[in-house]
This record gives sequence, structure tokens and C-alpha cells, in this order.
Amino acid sequence: MDFSLSKEEQLIQKAAAEYAEKFIEPIAKQIDEENRVPDEIIKGLGELDLFGIPFAEEYGGAGAGYACYVLAMEQIAAASSGVGMILSAHTLGLGAIDKFGTEEQKKKYMFKPCRGEEVASFAFTEPATGSDPKQIATTARREGDYYIINGTKRFISNAGYPGPIVVFAKEEETGKVSAFIVEKWCEGYSISEPWEKLGMHGGPLLDVYLKDVKVPAENLLGGPGMGYAILQYAISFGKVGVSACALGGAEAALREAFKYAKEKMHRGEPITKFQGIRLALAEIAERVEACRWMAYRLGYLADHAKDPAQFAKDAALTKDFICAQIVDISRLAVNVHGSYGLMKDYKVERLWRDAIMGLQIEGVSDMQKEIVAGVLLGRK
Amino acid sequence: MDFSLSKEEQLIQKAAAEYAEKFIEPIAKQIDEENRVPDEIIKGLGELDLFGIPFAEEYGGAGAGYACYVLAMEQIAAASSGVGMILSAHTLGLGAIDKFGTEEQKKKYMFKPCRGEEVASFAFTEPATGSDPKQIATTARREGDYYIINGTKRFISNAGYPGPIVVFAKEEETGKVSAFIVEKWCEGYSISEPWEKLGMHGGPLLDVYLKDVKVPAENLLGGPGMGYAILQYAISFGKVGVSACALGGAEAALREAFKYAKEKMHRGEPITKFQGIRLALAEIAERVEACRWMAYRLGYLADHAKDPAQFAKDAALTKDFICAQIVDISRLAVNVHGSYGLMKDYKVERLWRDAIMGLQIEGVSDMQKEIVAGVLLGRK
Amino acid sequence: MDFSLSKEEQLIQKAAAEYAEKFIEPIAKQIDEENRVPDEIIKGLGELDLFGIPFAEEYGGAGAGYACYVLAMEQIAAASSGVGMILSAHTLGLGAIDKFGTEEQKKKYMFKPCRGEEVASFAFTEPATGSDPKQIATTARREGDYYIINGTKRFISNAGYPGPIVVFAKEEETGKVSAFIVEKWCEGYSISEPWEKLGMHGGPLLDVYLKDVKVPAENLLGGPGMGYAILQYAISFGKVGVSACALGGAEAALREAFKYAKEKMHRGEPITKFQGIRLALAEIAERVEACRWMAYRLGYLADHAKDPAQFAKDAALTKDFICAQIVDISRLAVNVHGSYGLMKDYKVERLWRDAIMGLQIEGVSDMQKEIVAGVLLGRK
Amino acid sequence: MDFSLSKEEQLIQKAAAEYAEKFIEPIAKQIDEENRVPDEIIKGLGELDLFGIPFAEEYGGAGAGYACYVLAMEQIAAASSGVGMILSAHTLGLGAIDKFGTEEQKKKYMFKPCRGEEVASFAFTEPATGSDPKQIATTARREGDYYIINGTKRFISNAGYPGPIVVFAKEEETGKVSAFIVEKWCEGYSISEPWEKLGMHGGPLLDVYLKDVKVPAENLLGGPGMGYAILQYAISFGKVGVSACALGGAEAALREAFKYAKEKMHRGEPITKFQGIRLALAEIAERVEACRWMAYRLGYLADHAKDPAQFAKDAALTKDFICAQIVDISRLAVNVHGSYGLMKDYKVERLWRDAIMGLQIEGVSDMQKEIVAGVLLGRK
Repeated sequence: MDFSLSKEEQLIQKAAAEYAEKFIEPIAKQIDEENRVPDEIIKGLGELDLFGIPFAEEYGGAGAGYACYVLAMEQIAAASSGVGMILSAHTLGLGAIDKFGTEEQKKKYMFKPCRGEEVASFAFTEPATGSDPKQIATTARREGDYYIINGTKRFISNAGYPGPIVVFAKEEETGKVSAFIVEKWCEGYSISEPWEKLGMHGGPLLDVYLKDVKVPAENLLGGPGMGYAILQYAISFGKVGVSACALGGAEAALREAFKYAKEKMHRGEPITKFQGIRLALAEIAERVEACRWMAYRLGYLADHAKDPAQFAKDAALTKDFICAQIVDISRLAVNVHGSYGLMKDYKVERLWRDAIMGLQIEGVSDMQKEIVAGVLLGRK
Repeated sequence: MDFSLSKEEQLIQKAAAEYAEKFIEPIAKQIDEENRVPDEIIKGLGELDLFGIPFAEEYGGAGAGYACYVLAMEQIAAASSGVGMILSAHTLGLGAIDKFGTEEQKKKYMFKPCRGEEVASFAFTEPATGSDPKQIATTARREGDYYIINGTKRFISNAGYPGPIVVFAKEEETGKVSAFIVEKWCEGYSISEPWEKLGMHGGPLLDVYLKDVKVPAENLLGGPGMGYAILQYAISFGKVGVSACALGGAEAALREAFKYAKEKMHRGEPITKFQGIRLALAEIAERVEACRWMAYRLGYLADHAKDPAQFAKDAALTKDFICAQIVDISRLAVNVHGSYGLMKDYKVERLWRDAIMGLQIEGVSDMQKEIVAGVLLGRK
Repeated sequence: MDFSLSKEEQLIQKAAAEYAEKFIEPIAKQIDEENRVPDEIIKGLGELDLFGIPFAEEYGGAGAGYACYVLAMEQIAAASSGVGMILSAHTLGLGAIDKFGTEEQKKKYMFKPCRGEEVASFAFTEPATGSDPKQIATTARREGDYYIINGTKRFISNAGYPGPIVVFAKEEETGKVSAFIVEKWCEGYSISEPWEKLGMHGGPLLDVYLKDVKVPAENLLGGPGMGYAILQYAISFGKVGVSACALGGAEAALREAFKYAKEKMHRGEPITKFQGIRLALAEIAERVEACRWMAYRLGYLADHAKDPAQFAKDAALTKDFICAQIVDISRLAVNVHGSYGLMKDYKVERLWRDAIMGLQIEGVSDMQKEIVAGVLLGRK
Repeated sequence: MDFSLSKEEQLIQKAAAEYAEKFIEPIAKQIDEENRVPDEIIKGLGELDLFGIPFAEEYGGAGAGYACYVLAMEQIAAASSGVGMILSAHTLGLGAIDKFGTEEQKKKYMFKPCRGEEVASFAFTEPATGSDPKQIATTARREGDYYIINGTKRFISNAGYPGPIVVFAKEEETGKVSAFIVEKWCEGYSISEPWEKLGMHGGPLLDVYLKDVKVPAENLLGGPGMGYAILQYAISFGKVGVSACALGGAEAALREAFKYAKEKMHRGEPITKFQGIRLALAEIAERVEACRWMAYRLGYLADHAKDPAQFAKDAALTKDFICAQIVDISRLAVNVHGSYGLMKDYKVERLWRDAIMGLQIEGVSDMQKEIVAGVLLGRK
């Protein structure tokens, strides 16, 4: 075991931290208010290679693995969870292409997204059926060398950015669920207004409408009926991003709580003179540290795990743990701020809105626990 | 002991519930978005006597006591915490006049507020000093039959509505803290923009600027140097309102969680088929019931308690308990909703933003616990 | 609503508190160590009418209702949960006879137990089937004017004391579950050694063996096949006792924590000088108060509730809430004691062992929540 | 970062696990009941080198570092916390000699303990003063080439085993606190009966009486007045053992909960068919995993950390986190067992008694948090 960062890990962490501090933090409140990330940020992150961290250099990536991805995401998301959410959904979508794509598909669809010139998406969830693969209503009809896709997808990240979107649909002929690489903004592709949501602003969720979208047959991802396998893979890897994003939020709460406690005066002394404040700060620090090593470990496992079921369990377990912890961490951080913590002038106001989101996205808490229990009961 | 509602209690509860359901609930989302309660609502609540529940009929009140106030507030705040907050701050301010005012002051300043034609305020907190009575910076200078008041008050509710505001200031001559009844919008009175805050929208918090405000000497409340005693009294009674308001939020979370769980289908059955959902619903119900009887009891004590220290302890204890519980209750209610609970289309999104507020207002949690421990250690 | 105790309620509370302090508290550690309550205590409680609080005077009871029962139990159990457990199981068993018994049965079987000269039991649970009425294995075979009962019952309280025991068995002819009043220590009745358990010592749990136990047909309780109805009733009322017993434990934890904190010195001052200690004490006080009013209310509902399903819900909800709270309360109380709280010289050591028990007895937590959710989902 | 175990780490983990399963687990209940670990176990652990894991081979140790110590301790303590406690206190005492001893002292006092032929102790705490170095009452009076030590030490582990005990005393001449290597059972050394305590039986705590104990001057450890520095060092390293021991308890709770849930049948199916059980199992698994990596990391830091203040912070933070988690973990594990979890036939009964202990020993929770907050506030 080695709990120290390698040179490469330190470099990526530092680059992400510096970028976040210099370019994202100063506009993070604006991103929250406008629910929009300026294009320069996407471009900037792309130039830093942060849109392709875990992917091979031959497809435009940084070849640095998921452990580095977690380290970078933590820093980015600590500044703005909205930016983190874009990065997370992008890596999820692109990761599916990276894992299941043919050489041609990868060459065609990964370069630009890896450089942040495009942003990838992943479209499984549907309005009527949630994330239940048995109930998928979107259809793909084979017509010669093409598939014609029709359906509606819900809560899709990055749906407005150009780039590839992995779309799941039921093949009309066979009833099997397959995945397709679709180019966003192709004919028949349209999106809703962003859902108005509690937090993680800047990373908008949209519904995607696919109306007779014509996709070349070679854009089938991983073979016919591989949809479920791709989904299984992708949702585990998606939890790496959500976990790292939540860790970033936890880290931000820690920073804000300490900063406020050291600056806020009561009768001429900082409020850290109150033991209650110190106990709250320490409680935050303890929990953040636990989240940190769970998230870092998940990044490591994403790079090294060999048993998909075990990795699915560890991904579910880590995501659920951190996303539950961050609620308590944020609560403590708001409490340290007192009434001021409720005001939009203080970052914790935003962190509180963000805090509950991780538990609900990429699968609710009970679903994570079912995965954990299922694997452990089947194997032990 | 009797845990059933009297006829009068049932009537007021029912009247408030019906009004809330019919007039407030339909516009509650709008109140949240616009951070403004329509004047008709204030008027409507006034006509129902809800602005004067605990006050004697001879001053325009309903003479129904604080237990009834809690029952009504629960229903109002369940529809909109913003409306609840207006009512709570109003009753806090008016309660101080009711308790410490002379016959003339009560006759002069209570009738209109009791009818909702005016809305009362209470102004203690200041920018530099928080709620620390030893550090008050607002000054009152005696000039003949008048006091000249200068200072800034922070986070003041109802500051924009006409009506009396109880202002605490340090008398320049004696250094004693006194309280004064000031008429809002008199000369020298001005207010800031509302603080942009996390939740409880519609009940805006403002800073109040007092610049050479000239107050007749007879508006001194309770005698010179009585400020601290008035404050002590008022903050305990203020916690009755905050507790009832939080109970309303808890009740709303319960209603939303059950409603959603019964309606939301998964593979043709409501999600209540999942034990995890049922366990969460039951957990919510348990906690809400505990909050309910703590809040009802506090209303009863506000009417009957004889020992101010014991009442201060019970008020602190109740407010802290309920305001901590509501965070957990709201968290469970959001979880029941899954991703949809994060969307502004669902009321729990608002409830989550409201949930953390009670712990920070009218004294932070640690302060409540200090009061509780102080009384219990001094007496047992 | 009235949150003050009536004269009668105060009297019973005081009598129980005085008896507990004078006679039980001094030997409570001994009761824990020997896992045995001296007969004088049973006798003493009987003389105070505490074995018949809620039952009519015409059958030897005090006719004081369940609210008084809760008040008395709180005080008794605060001194010794083992004594509380005896009283609780006794009242459960006797309550079933009181509710479903004929005039003759009540006359015959209630007087002595109401005076503490006998102690009642209730025997449903079985080794193989837990508390599942569908799986009951004990049989009752009709032979002329008698039933012949065979089977084994598990975790039965008071099984060693003489007195009536309500036994559930499946009638061989009809397959219906019926309940029978059996006299303990009749021919064919025998018991196991007490289960060695974590806490609540003094209130031993035993297995009861029924071998060809011959019961007069007139001892059938409530009619043939009424077993399930009697069970439903009884387990709700049993939760009144468990809730009150848990409240007593919570109250004991509060008393111990305050006592220790006030006496224990650190550098010449009591440890209450540390804010962390004061916050813990206040947290204990808050939670105990919430438990108190939930338990008192349940006692009131046991006397007044008209809808059995609603009462079942309130009993489940209250028992689950208090029994969960007491774990946290006891944890805080141990923490206040530091290392000394782990030593048998301090009462909190015992309270910690008792604390987790309530959640497991008279139905586990998830079962309570299922009842709560079931009633609320079916009705709302 | 590397979250996989090295070959050496795997070997030690496996050896400890096999020994624990084969030799400790079968007698763990007996150890609990008799509050005594058979000598063969001490001998067996010694033969496996587990009494000298982190110490250099030149002094009889295994030279394997603290990371390996944590891995071994986890397995040992999962079988019996009492055995874990002996090992932990021993390593604490021996670690102080290893760090601060002269070559001669190490040669003289480490060999036998490293082989388990003796067991080391550490004696700081006193009856009147707790663990407050400013109030130490034990005295050391220089007489020629000897020190004469008088005083009483409280809650001392391993005090009955032969071997070195590090004793802190105030030098009479200078008033400075120094540490001395004393040989247990020398003249003037005697011990009390074991404290009767809640759990961790087998690892008895005793008071140590030192009456005119004559210690050669060369047994002064680390120089005159070095007591405080030695204490600071030792208590941080002591937390490595307590953390690993608590992790072992958490792991045991996980194993028991899964085992019971898989075996216990309800209507012909294992109780894992209930979602509530699965959710509880998953919650346990999540928390244990978080504890695991916090503990492993602390072992790593004990081997690699360079900044003592940072290490003190990490040790405090880890110990407090894990020891708080284990209470919740054990609670869940008992709940999975239902009523049977309260019975001494099931291991979780013992785990519940052990669970609260970690929070109280080697410094209470608030003290850990003060250390964490102190370091973070002083540095950030």
C-alpha cells in the first residue's frame, strides 16, 4: 500500500487546483446564478487535458488513468460542482466509447472530446421508466445501413454541447437493447429547456428528443444487444466521477468552514475560541478525510480492478458513502457560518444546495445499497 | 394530561389549514420564486385573525393563546415558510409590545397589526455584533421629549411593511440598553435590498438603517434599561414561532413524501412496494410526530409557564430539537423523490432549502444548547 | 391540549419515584449482577398498586389508566430496567385477559396479579417461527372439556413466577390460532434456564415447554380463532410498556450524565466548564424531552384511542422512535463519563447494555416501520 | 497511490487471520466470560512475531512497520478485542522504548517482549488527574544511582504480565516529568484487581501501585524532563493500535451480520429477502470500508509521516472517526440479528459492549477533535 501521491498525480492535482483557483473560483457564483459555464472554461480545461485524463494518448487523451481523474475532479468540483458535473458526464459518455468502441469509432469520436472541443453525453434514462433497462421505450429501427432512432431521454447532461452522445434504444426487430453513438445536433435531435433544479448549476440537465434520428449502422456500439453490458460498465465508471465531484464539494465545505471560523470575530476573538466551533471543524475534517481516501481508492480500482462485479460493488459503496457524508459535512459547514451561511454571499449556501444531489443522481442511495448487498451476499 | 385538541384549537387549526390549502399553496412556488408574499395573503390572514392569535381581544387580538398560534402556524408554514416567517417575526415584535407596553402603547400600536393591516418587526441584531447585547452599537440620545436613534440593524424581517418595529439601542447618557417602539417608514428610516438567501423566500431579511430617527419619549418600551429583559423574553417567545414554522416544514415534507410515493410508479406499481421507501416514510412519520408534540407543548408552555428560566430552557430545547429534526426529515423526503426531488417542479426542492434555516435563525444551535445546559446545571 | 399532570398523575408518579429511589436504586446493581429481582420488590410494587395500574378496581386494579402506567413505569425503569421489564410483560399479559376475558376469567385470574401476588406472562413467540402468527407450531387439541396444549415458547418474560400465562396455539381441528389462559407451573409446564443476555437483567427471558398441558375449555380467551385479534391488540399495548421502560432508561442516562458532569473535576473545576460537555448534556436533555412526550402521549392514546389501526400505528411509531433515541442518548451519556463510563462502578455501563434492547424486543425496528407505513399509506 | 497489499503485507495479514480463526475465535467467548487470555495465545502470537511487528529485527522485532501491524491487528481484534487490546497496549509501551531508548535499553528490554515472552505496559494516567500531564502526582526521587518512584497509575493494560512498563513521574528535584523503564513485579510494584468493565474482556485494566520502587538511573527514558515529548509521541502511536483494534471490531460486526442474515430463515427463505436487511448490510459494508482505509492509511503514516503535528492530527482524526463509526456499525449488526442479537450465544452481543469503548480510551472524542482542530487551525 502507498498513500502518497506519485509525481504525475501531484502534477495533475496541482494543475487542476491552480486552474480552479485562478479561473473557476472567481466566477463560480456567476455560474451558479446563470446556470451556465462560460465556453472559455471548457476550452481551458480541454487545454489542460482534463477532458481526456483517463483515455489513451492515441485517441487524444492524457493516458493518466482514473486515479488522476479523481484528483483533478476533486479540485475542479471544489470550485464549481457545475463544472464538475459537465466533466463527469462527459467522461462517462466518452468512457463507454473508449471501452466498447471499435478502433474506427474511437478515432472518429474521441479526439475532439478529449481536447474539450466537444463534450460527450450519455443518454439512458427516460421519462416513463427511470433507469430501468427492462422498460426502455426509445426504439431503433434498422433501415439498410442505418438505424432510425425515436424516443425521449431525460435528465441528460451536456446535451446542448456538440459531440457524441451514447444513446440506448430497443431494437425493433429483436427487442434487444443496444447503444448507439449519435452526433448531437444532427437532424431530428433537439433538446428541452434545462430542468430548473436545486443546485449543481452550470451542469444543466435536459431532456433530449430524438425524432427519426438517422444513425449509420457502424455507429452501433459494442454490437447488437450489448446495451445492458455497456450500461452496467458505464454506470460503475460514472460513479467514479460522481464520487470525486462529491469529494470536491466536501473539500469546499471544509475550506469554507475553516476560513469563516478563522475570520469571524466575536468580542474581539475569532469564533474558533468556542469549543463547539472547533468540534464542528474537526468533525468536518474527519469526514472529509474518510471521503477522500474512499474516492482516491475508487479511482485506483477503476484503473486496476479485474472483477467487474467487485468493482460495481466498490463503486456503489463509495458513491453512496461519500454522497451521504457530504450532506452531513455541508450541514456542519453551514452551522459554523450561522445566519450568514444562509446568504448567497457565502459559498456554503450553494454547497448546501449541491450537497443532497449526489445521493439522487447516477442511481439513488437504496439502489447503490442493493448493488453492494447483492454482490456481497452472492459471493461471501 | 390531555393530548386532544379542544374545540377552539380544532377550529383555528382547521381555518388555518383551509386558508393555506386554498390560497397559499397554489401560489407558494410563485412566492418562492419572487421572494414576495402578495398583499392579499397578508390581508386574508389578518381577516382570519391569524395576525393576533395570542393577543387579548381588547387590543384587537383573538385572545386564543400561543397553543393556537402554534397550530395555525404549522398549517400556514406547511404551505409556505415565507408566509410563516412573516407571521413569526410579526408575533415576536408584537409580543414584546403586548408584554412590556403601557396601556397607551398597546392601544396605539397593536390594533392594526393584530388585524394584519400592519406588520410588526423586531430589531436587535446588528452587523458588527451579531446578537450580543453587550456589543450593541445603535445609540439613542435623549433630546427633550424625544430620543434620537442612530444605527444599523441586520437581518430584520417585515422591515418593509408599515407598522411598529421594536428597536434596541444603547442610551448615550447611561450606557443602558433600552427598547423603543418605532414606526417603520418614519423620517430617517430606510432599508436595504433583501438579502439573497437560500430559502424561506417571501419572508425577506433586510438591513434597517436608522438615521437621526426621532422617537417620542413615551415610545420607550418597559422603562429605561429594560432592553435586556425584553430581549430575553422576546427571544424565548420568538422560538415558539420558529419551532411551529419548522414543524410546518416537517409536516409539508411528510405530505410530499407520501404523495409522491403513492403516485410514482415503477413497473406498474407504486414505489411504496419497495421496503426501503416504506421504511423512509415511516421514519419521516416518527420524527414529525415527535416534532409535533414538542412544538404543541411549547405553545402550551408559552401560555402557562411561570418560571421564565424554565421556559427559556424549554423554548431553546424545542427549537433546537425540531430544527435539527427537520433537516433529517427533509433529507428523507428528498430521497423518496429520487432525482425528481432536486427539481423545482417538486415542492421538496424548496423544503430542502428551507430545512437548514431554522437552525441558524433566532440563535444558532450551540447557543440553544448553552441555554439548556445552563438552566439545567444551575437548577438540578 | 394540556401538558400538565393531573393530581392523580402526579401522585402515582411521585409514589413510583419514591419507591424506586428508596428500594430499587440501592439494589439495582445487584439486580443486574444476579439477574434476579428480590421478591420483596415485587411485593412492594404490588402493595403500591403498580401491578394493576390500568385495570379496573373491580378486578383488583388501580383503575388509573395507561397514562399513569407510563408515568410510574418511567420512574421504576429509570432505577432498574429489569424491574421495568417484569412490569411491562406482566401488564401485557394481564391486559389481554382484561380486554378479552369473560367476567369469570377476569375474576379468577386478575386479582392476584393486580396485587403483585402473581405475575402474568404472555407467550406467543416460538423458536422456529419468531413472531409470525402464520407459522405457529404450538398445538391445542380439544379433548372433552379440556384442551391439550403442546409446544415450546421462546423469550418469555416472567415465566418462572406463578400466575396466568396467555398461550397462543393452533387448534388441531380447525387450524385456527386461539389464545388460552394457562396457569404457570401446572402439570406439563416447565421452563429453561434464563437466556444469557446483554442487559435488562432481572427481567429474565426463558423458553417455556408445554407438554400435554391440560387446560379447561373455559380458559379459552376471547373465543376460538381469536388468537390473531388478541395478538394484534396485545402487541400494541405491549409497546406502551416498552416505550415507557425505554423512557425510563433515557431519563436515567440524563440523570447520570448530569450528576457525573457536575461532580467530576478537571484542574479544580467541574468538567461542565468544557463546552463540549455542555453541548452533550443539552443534546441529551432535548432528546429525552422528545421521548417523554411521545411516551406520555402513547399512554394517553392507550386510554382514549378509538381506532385500533391508528393506535397500532402510534404505538409502533412511538416505540420505534424512543428505542432509537435511547441508543443515542446513552451513547452521549457514556461519552460524558469518558473511560469511567465503561466501568461497572458507574450506572451508564448498564444503561449502554440496556439501550439497544428496546429496538429488538416486541418487534424489531423494521417491523414497527412497516406497521406505521402500512396504516399511513392505507388511509391517507 | 497504491491501494493493493504488498506480498509482505498479504503474508502477515494471512498469518494473523489464520491464527485468529484457528486459535482465538474458538475461545473468544470464553475469553470474554473469564476476562482472561490463555497464556498459549500470548505465546502463539509471539511465535508468529506479532508482538514485534513494527520493531527492528536487531531488537527481536519483525521489522515490518506499522502498516503491517494494522493489518495483523485487524484480524486478531476481529476475533477478540481483548487480545487486540493486549497487543495494542504492549506495542504502545514498547514503541516508546523503541523510539526513545538508548541502545542498551533497547537491547535489554525489547527482545523478550518482541517474542511475546514478556508483555510491555505504558503507565501515564492517574486516579486524580486523568491524562493531564500538568497534574501528574507520581514522584521520582533521585537517590544516588537510582530513582525512587512512588504513586498510583490507573487503567493500566498488561500490568499483570512480566515485562517493562514505561512509568511517568514528576522528578522531585526539578518538577519535570520524566519517563522510566520499570520492570513489572519488581519490589514495591503491585496491582489492583481488574476493573470490572463493559467489554474488551481479556484485556484487563488495572491500577498499578508503586511504593518506593527503586529504578536504576540508566532506566530513565529519553533524558530528564522528556516525559511530555514521550507522551505526545506515544499517544499518537497508541491510536494506531486503537484504530486497528476498532477496525477489527467493525470487520467482525460485518462478518456476523452477513453470516446471520444468510442463515436465518423466515418462511422458508433467508431474511436477506427483506430489503431492510439488505440495506442494513450494505450500510455496514460501506462504513467498514471507510474505516478500513482510514486505518490502513494511519498505519502507512506511522511508517512514513515526517511532521509529528500532522501525524498527531491524522492519528486523532482516524481514531475518532473509526471509533464513532464502529458504534453505528455494531448497532446495525445487532439490529440485523433482532432479539437473538441480545443473547450471549451470538457474538454481536459482545461486539455491542466493545463498540463504545474505543471512543473513551486513549483520549475521549472531544480531546481528539481538539487535537485535529488545533493542528488545522494553526497551519492552514
